[in-house]
Amino acid sequence: MNALFNEQPHRRYNILTDEWVLVSPHRTKRPWQGKSDKAKPLESKKYDTNCYLCPTNKRANGLRNPDYQNTYSFTNDFSALLPLEKHLEFNEGLLKASSESGICKVVCFSPNHSLTLPLMPIEEIAEVIKIWKKEFTELSSIPDINHVQIFENKGAVMGCSNPHPHGQIWAQRTIPEVVLKKQTQQLKYYNKTGRSLLEDYIKQELELNERIILKNKYFVALVPYWAVWPYETMIVPLSHYQNITQLNHKEEMAFAEIIKDLTIKYDNLFETSFPYSSGIHQSPTDKSHPEWHFHMSFYPPLLRSAEVKKFMVGYEMFANPQRDITAEQAAKSLKELKTIHYSTQQ
Amino acid sequence: MNALFNEQPHRRYNILTDEWVLVSPHRTKRPWQGKSDKAKPLESKKYDTNCYLCPTNKRANGLRNPDYQNTYSFTNDFSALLPLEKHLEFNEGLLKASSESGICKVVCFSPNHSLTLPLMPIEEIAEVIKIWKKEFTELSSIPDINHVQIFENKGAVMGCSNPHPHGQIWAQRTIPEVVLKKQTQQLKYYNKTGRSLLEDYIKQELELNERIILKNKYFVALVPYWAVWPYETMIVPLSHYQNITQLNHKEEMAFAEIIKDLTIKYDNLFETSFPYSSGIHQSPTDKSHPEWHFHMSFYPPLLRSAEVKKFMVGYEMFANPQRDITAEQAAKSLKELKTIHYSTQQ
Ligand SMILES: O=P(O)(O)O[C@H]1O[C@H](CO)[C@@H](O)[C@H](O)[C@H]1O
Ligand SMILES: O=P(O)(O)O[C@H]1O[C@H](CO)[C@@H](O)[C@H](O)[C@H]1O
Repeated sequence: MNALFNEQPHRRYNILTDEWVLVSPHRTKRPWQGKSDKAKPLESKKYDTNCYLCPTNKRANGLRNPDYQNTYSFTNDFSALLPLEKHLEFNEGLLKASSESGICKVVCFSPNHSLTLPLMPIEEIAEVIKIWKKEFTELSSIPDINHVQIFENKGAVMGCSNPHPHGQIWAQRTIPEVVLKKQTQQLKYYNKTGRSLLEDYIKQELELNERIILKNKYFVALVPYWAVWPYETMIVPLSHYQNITQLNHKEEMAFAEIIKDLTIKYDNLFETSFPYSSGIHQSPTDKSHPEWHFHMSFYPPLLRSAEVKKFMVGYEMFANPQRDITAEQAAKSLKELKTIHYSTQQ
Repeated sequence: MNALFNEQPHRRYNILTDEWVLVSPHRTKRPWQGKSDKAKPLESKKYDTNCYLCPTNKRANGLRNPDYQNTYSFTNDFSALLPLEKHLEFNEGLLKASSESGICKVVCFSPNHSLTLPLMPIEEIAEVIKIWKKEFTELSSIPDINHVQIFENKGAVMGCSNPHPHGQIWAQRTIPEVVLKKQTQQLKYYNKTGRSLLEDYIKQELELNERIILKNKYFVALVPYWAVWPYETMIVPLSHYQNITQLNHKEEMAFAEIIKDLTIKYDNLFETSFPYSSGIHQSPTDKSHPEWHFHMSFYPPLLRSAEVKKFMVGYEMFANPQRDITAEQAAKSLKELKTIHYSTQQ
């Protein structure tokens, strides 16, 4: 890549969404006047009587969680989506609305309140992948469910008030906006070449080896060329799989391993329990989607320290996503970090 | 509108961006476990020796601000966009980048450090509109500048660490993503009907009178039908103007008045200096754009109190924007609030 792009403002094209991101690498020289507090200590309680996700505790609806041993999923007590009896359409002049139906679930990753993915053994992360697969299969077999979004909000800065390790799944009738964009781009490429857009992309990235962070037999983790968040990353299977249900046992273990190593690096970056939203984009469940290549993305807000985040505000909201450090700088930092958690290093 | 939409999950269509938003009105019944601290007192210092925006103070680049009396604009000392000598294009396999050039400016709204738009007299807000007009005209006459984005980030939660009243302007070579979307939709409508999409939209809204908050002779302020942020609003000129340079003196005053009244209502909502990002979307400056109808939008993050905001995280990042209270509920609350600032009420 032209070396000038390391210093000069430029735009990069996102092949998955057909959108551009503004990159301003020279801005990293900007002094920081904001505060840079020491990070909070890690959660230490393995069980919290006040946590509505811990085994045997009572939830908001009065029900008690079972004494679960690995993972546990249940319907969100305050679901944004609901199964609907009657579908309504509204169309009047320039106003247009339509009912939406679906199901929101919560997935507890572990009975241990004090854990997070990077601190869990690989076998236990594989249990999380197994329940994701199970939920994906079950939810997609429900009539009128055409898309299943698996995601995790981690950390108070990402709107998550409960540190108990958990994620969510929102399954719904329509295909959401972001997914539609990625589908359009993958379908275009697939129709033109007969190949997976992401498979070709990771081949190119592996050759260039500038943005790769981790690789094992079945998966690669990298900072995508068009990353928006400072330390945004993507885990992509080397095989052209549409969704996680296609993973066999070995691949599940490899997926668990790369999730663990990547999130350990994240925690090590600023020696803090690294906040992020992560999500798995995979084929909608309405019909067969040979164009889709599933991938898991991490959008972490931190920029310079455990307390200094990137704000996606004014310009980003009204005009265009914008980032300061380049994808290459971010990849270099993450690559150099150890895969042993800082809390267990001597 | 079908009354069931007040209670059931549904999607609403945004005519300006061709995107849908998920609305979950039943979620307002959700209990809130998070904190709800008392709001911070308003800034009281009229002049702060440590503020790099106050008159006569020194900035990061060593220059001193003049002893300005109304407004003052200067080139951002840490601009994300820069004038470039050489334009570069990069295209290799699936990687695509291209130089971006432009100018970032800072606009001080007042020499008085303790003010914000709702606390400024209408005449002084009109001065802000005048300098926006001047900057828009000057910046758009520079070669290779095709778009001028005027915006304000207000409040620490919106990444603004300095309370001194100010906004920013980023002018650049390319037309940003969000602007392009709105352009496409307005152009489609204009080509089909010969009319302004927003002019027809506000006519319909004025008839329905369900989401209108304020109206004067030249402007209307409303919660758009497809609002994403809990108290998102839009100020639209009744006349089909492409950009703010078309405003005459009377219209400037009316614009200033509606900005003042709307931001007073915002401050009154949770009795706090209400954070938001605001921005003016107007015609790009590359050529004539009869389809464009300029409008100013406010994206405020607060949901339930001065301290409880809506998090646009997991689902919103990976799938679709989502809101809980309906546009109608938000409009009703804002409409009922006084246009006298809470700090001056007895
Ligand atoms: O330029 P500032 O005020 O330092 O920065 C703020 O506004 C910019 C434009 O919206 C954003 O890119 C930054 O993330 C935000 O912190
Ligand atoms: O469902 P929760 O954890 O209460 O809520 C969190 O995640 C949701 C899905 O991303 C968001 O809509 C909420 O704004 C956020 O606070």
